[in-house]
Amino acid sequence: MPISAIDPVGAVARDHADAADLLRELFPLARSLTGEGVRQTHAALARLHPLETKEIPSGTAALDWTVPKEWKVHAAHLTGPDGRRYADFAENPLHLVNYSVPFRGRLARDKLEKHLHSLPERPDAIPYVTSYYAPRWGFCLSQKARAALPDGIYDVVVDTEHFDGSMTLSNAFLPGCEAGEIHFSAYTCHPHMANDELCGSIALMLLARRLAAKPQRRLGVRVVLHPETIGSVAYLAKHGDRLRRDMVAGYTVCNIGRAESFRYKRSRRGGIADRAMEFCLRNRAPVPICMPFRPEGSDERQYCSPGFDLPVGALTRSEPQFAEYHTSLDTPDLVPISAIIETVDLLEDVVETLDRNATYINLKPFGEPQLGRYGLYPTIGTTREREADLLAMLWLLNYSDGKHDLMSIAELSGHLVRRLSAAASRCVAAGILREAAGVQ
Amino acid sequence: MPISAIDPVGAVARDHADAADLLRELFPLARSLTGEGVRQTHAALARLHPLETKEIPSGTAALDWTVPKEWKVHAAHLTGPDGRRYADFAENPLHLVNYSVPFRGRLARDKLEKHLHSLPERPDAIPYVTSYYAPRWGFCLSQKARAALPDGIYDVVVDTEHFDGSMTLSNAFLPGCEAGEIHFSAYTCHPHMANDELCGSIALMLLARRLAAKPQRRLGVRVVLHPETIGSVAYLAKHGDRLRRDMVAGYTVCNIGRAESFRYKRSRRGGIADRAMEFCLRNRAPVPICMPFRPEGSDERQYCSPGFDLPVGALTRSEPQFAEYHTSLDTPDLVPISAIIETVDLLEDVVETLDRNATYINLKPFGEPQLGRYGLYPTIGTTREREADLLAMLWLLNYSDGKHDLMSIAELSGHLVRRLSAAASRCVAAGILREAAGVQ
Amino acid sequence: MPISAIDPVGAVARDHADAADLLRELFPLARSLTGEGVRQTHAALARLHPLETKEIPSGTAALDWTVPKEWKVHAAHLTGPDGRRYADFAENPLHLVNYSVPFRGRLARDKLEKHLHSLPERPDAIPYVTSYYAPRWGFCLSQKARAALPDGIYDVVVDTEHFDGSMTLSNAFLPGCEAGEIHFSAYTCHPHMANDELCGSIALMLLARRLAAKPQRRLGVRVVLHPETIGSVAYLAKHGDRLRRDMVAGYTVCNIGRAESFRYKRSRRGGIADRAMEFCLRNRAPVPICMPFRPEGSDERQYCSPGFDLPVGALTRSEPQFAEYHTSLDTPDLVPISAIIETVDLLEDVVETLDRNATYINLKPFGEPQLGRYGLYPTIGTTREREADLLAMLWLLNYSDGKHDLMSIAELSGHLVRRLSAAASRCVAAGILREAAGVQ
Repeated sequence: MPISAIDPVGAVARDHADAADLLRELFPLARSLTGEGVRQTHAALARLHPLETKEIPSGTAALDWTVPKEWKVHAAHLTGPDGRRYADFAENPLHLVNYSVPFRGRLARDKLEKHLHSLPERPDAIPYVTSYYAPRWGFCLSQKARAALPDGIYDVVVDTEHFDGSMTLSNAFLPGCEAGEIHFSAYTCHPHMANDELCGSIALMLLARRLAAKPQRRLGVRVVLHPETIGSVAYLAKHGDRLRRDMVAGYTVCNIGRAESFRYKRSRRGGIADRAMEFCLRNRAPVPICMPFRPEGSDERQYCSPGFDLPVGALTRSEPQFAEYHTSLDTPDLVPISAIIETVDLLEDVVETLDRNATYINLKPFGEPQLGRYGLYPTIGTTREREADLLAMLWLLNYSDGKHDLMSIAELSGHLVRRLSAAASRCVAAGILREAAGVQ
Repeated sequence: MPISAIDPVGAVARDHADAADLLRELFPLARSLTGEGVRQTHAALARLHPLETKEIPSGTAALDWTVPKEWKVHAAHLTGPDGRRYADFAENPLHLVNYSVPFRGRLARDKLEKHLHSLPERPDAIPYVTSYYAPRWGFCLSQKARAALPDGIYDVVVDTEHFDGSMTLSNAFLPGCEAGEIHFSAYTCHPHMANDELCGSIALMLLARRLAAKPQRRLGVRVVLHPETIGSVAYLAKHGDRLRRDMVAGYTVCNIGRAESFRYKRSRRGGIADRAMEFCLRNRAPVPICMPFRPEGSDERQYCSPGFDLPVGALTRSEPQFAEYHTSLDTPDLVPISAIIETVDLLEDVVETLDRNATYINLKPFGEPQLGRYGLYPTIGTTREREADLLAMLWLLNYSDGKHDLMSIAELSGHLVRRLSAAASRCVAAGILREAAGVQ
Repeated sequence: MPISAIDPVGAVARDHADAADLLRELFPLARSLTGEGVRQTHAALARLHPLETKEIPSGTAALDWTVPKEWKVHAAHLTGPDGRRYADFAENPLHLVNYSVPFRGRLARDKLEKHLHSLPERPDAIPYVTSYYAPRWGFCLSQKARAALPDGIYDVVVDTEHFDGSMTLSNAFLPGCEAGEIHFSAYTCHPHMANDELCGSIALMLLARRLAAKPQRRLGVRVVLHPETIGSVAYLAKHGDRLRRDMVAGYTVCNIGRAESFRYKRSRRGGIADRAMEFCLRNRAPVPICMPFRPEGSDERQYCSPGFDLPVGALTRSEPQFAEYHTSLDTPDLVPISAIIETVDLLEDVVETLDRNATYINLKPFGEPQLGRYGLYPTIGTTREREADLLAMLWLLNYSDGKHDLMSIAELSGHLVRRLSAAASRCVAAGILREAAGVQ
């Protein structure tokens, strides 16, 4: 049961308020692969739950990649022949192509053209453009603004710096009593956009706070925040072997700031991560959409690269190319906070489902045990009195053959892992069931 | 082909008449887990085909269970302050909670309440309530009758007896020439209800009579009648090892007294039992409903418990909770006898399909054999003359590779096992096919 | 891309014209299992692309069959009491039951009846009737003509000859650089019908001509023409072992002379032949129909007999029993030449797909390779610029784990094998991919 059902005023109200505040606070920051904007973002998120933040030096080799130089923008603006500023990083970081190299000069409008970016099909939007690995500079404007640029000579200032600094990664780990862990990741490199990026990390930090307030689990839970692609590459370079050993299930979480259908893209390898998520998605409205793995998208491309092939699926909640995607139109105003909270509820459910999953052995497998003898059966009742708990117990006992875990039984029966797990506890106490050794 | 298609006047008319008579005769008997009502029921059913009846003593251990004491009702009635009998076992055995312990006394109406059972949502029905394993007494009334009970002191007589007697099980076995057997079971413990219980045992006894009149089969056929749950538990305790060795397919048959869709719940383990039933259900109207195994329902829960895991499916013909289920409304008037006869037809078809199933080896597997050389091909014909027999033979020859039995070929081709089996006989006689050794 | 998209005037126009001419020229010939009509047909088809023609002597043993005597018709006609010729082989070879034995005599109309064939349900059609393996004679007439036969004595002349001659088989082989081959077959034994038979062999010969004009492939391509059944039996008797070793995929092609849905019947064994065809059929209009194997139909019955079990599917383009099937109504007028050309386009696509299929190993499997470093990534672009080529490369790299061939990746991703193959070439050149050894 999500906390929202238990305490609609207290904890949930706090989640709502904190999510709304953080979204407003973090939205305008000038994030990139590296730099102060990212550091401020991680620091603010750590107010929800402690984060361990690490800096990876520029130039560090990471698999087939290299951690880039840190990027700093002192100032960047485009001034027209009329003295008007047509684009200014200080006003909106999207105006500057992310990772632009320095440039200072005066250019005629026609020479400027190849440095300008706009979206004819979305004339009011400033597009989000990056050039991380090729040395370029450029400005992004709305198509309307671009069309209105007067002829003449423009004064261009791109006062940026690429230097040997570092890239910021953070993680929070809630240890379990056993070795396995559940991994969540979100990226934190997109400037001045709300759904496509901030919602994911806010949801994960709220999840961490909620889980930390509950009793310890069997499984550890880890939340990792990093820039897209190079961040997960660097994390995998360092922790890939551990993840291959310990990760029970992992999920990337982004673009969850819309009240639309949850969209789940399965992991490449399939298995318990996908089954738990799909089971928990059942019966949610609007009807969820589950898709096979595709090596397109975000950090799941790295986690699911064939060398690692980790059990990582991707959760989103909007069309891959939603209307405001990667533009200045993706603002907090369009994010219903309830969409974030429902995501936290779902993930909490997934964690509980994975954590309670176990395989049991029925110690009375020939015929049904006579439940009444063990105090496990209602001994009177009209024949219509068939309770879900009793049925869940029959399913549990019938399929506790060492080959079906609770998740399988849940899938076959429709009963929640939570209910099956409770039935298992009662049967173990009654001595008619035991947990199978060494099965996960 | 069901007998009904061959002899619509003789044998089938007899089946109809006998089913109708038995249903009327057996309906009012006061059955329970044990006792004279059950013995009378088995004795009457044995008039259709001989039954071997056994008595299992009370106290006999059976898997996790114990055979209960026998229950006998001398008298049981509830008399109001006005001297009226508001419930009387002699009038309808459903009035007394089944297995009620003795009680005699005078109780005010409010003290009586916890001993009364009725169904508010079905105000005219007397419910069927049991308390086999907890010592209680109680009376069942329609909600209307209960509501009309006057205040005052009631005279309660529950003159029952629990004593060391026995539990009645019967079986009929038609031996085959080979070791395997097909198992059918129905339960005989429900008093004064028609669809939910009598129809199943009547259908099985008619089936036994029909099969006994036909040539011997490869496979044995067994019909077993017993009380629900404890009966199958006791049968399995004694015969479980044999069943695990010999049972080719098994079916529980109950609630088949409605002209609705056949409903088949597959066995837990799947395999030939389910495939034969589902194949024979094809093309029946109304469209049959096939469902995966669920460890809910009736005796299939025992047969399919994980220790035994026998190939037993469950055939019914009404909604699991049909309108009159487990009440006094489930009367012979609502049973179309044709529903019983159609069930017998279906089961006869299933027996034949299982019995004829075999695996063959094509001795001319390279290219098609030139059928004309063996007298197996019509040598002239317009090109539109493609007969089902010829096509069945092509299917048989192509798939007789030692990996496909006739059932598989039937499923692939849509041809009946009967037609494929006839084609196989001709091909074996022509020397181009042989039966595979040691495959079932 | 089919040639029709590249050169709508030159090569394709020639294909159209040649197909139309050949169809008209070959239609009236008196084909049979053997004889001059077949030889003339093969000789004419060889004008499209060289054919190696072989004669198999009558009496040659072939698997369970024997090559029949050659059949020659000197004259065959039926003259009525009024002196009118009611059926004449010279006018239409369908008038004579194919392989009729000689007969000469005078018969009353009622004695004639058992030698006459017509189709009541298609009163204007002369049916196509054969009696290859039983010695009979007969005449085929339209039902209308038959009904109008006057009473009286008929003069019957069936001046035919069965002699030790030979049966004609032809093949064209385009060698590849590797051992595997793709096999196509069509039959050439049906007289005076257009869709049901000529279209298939014309399509295959056009395919051979097109493929011969292109660079050599990895895989060989073979086109085989023979009479139905006994032809494929004889071919398999001689070449079956080679086919089992070398055939990567095979297809029988017949009845493709209608602009209807392609209909593909899968091979018995499944695998790459079916997957390539089904992949290439995607998105074709009208929506193609794919069916499981059935041992009914034409030469695929021999190729897919269980001893050989070759990967041969059957491609057609009309209902199995189309309105004019096996009658004089199946004329060239009802064949849109575009239907033949579209078939050639499809088969060319299938050949390319099979030929380019290969399995690769990603040499940078941990995380994604940084494509920009290898010149494989567009280094700038608005975020909406995601090109199919880049996505195809991501799919290729992710699934090049030695377990997925390009066909699998095509099926998973929807990208064409052609595009994936091009991406593979670039990645191999960049040193991040290699072809897996010894996998097909």
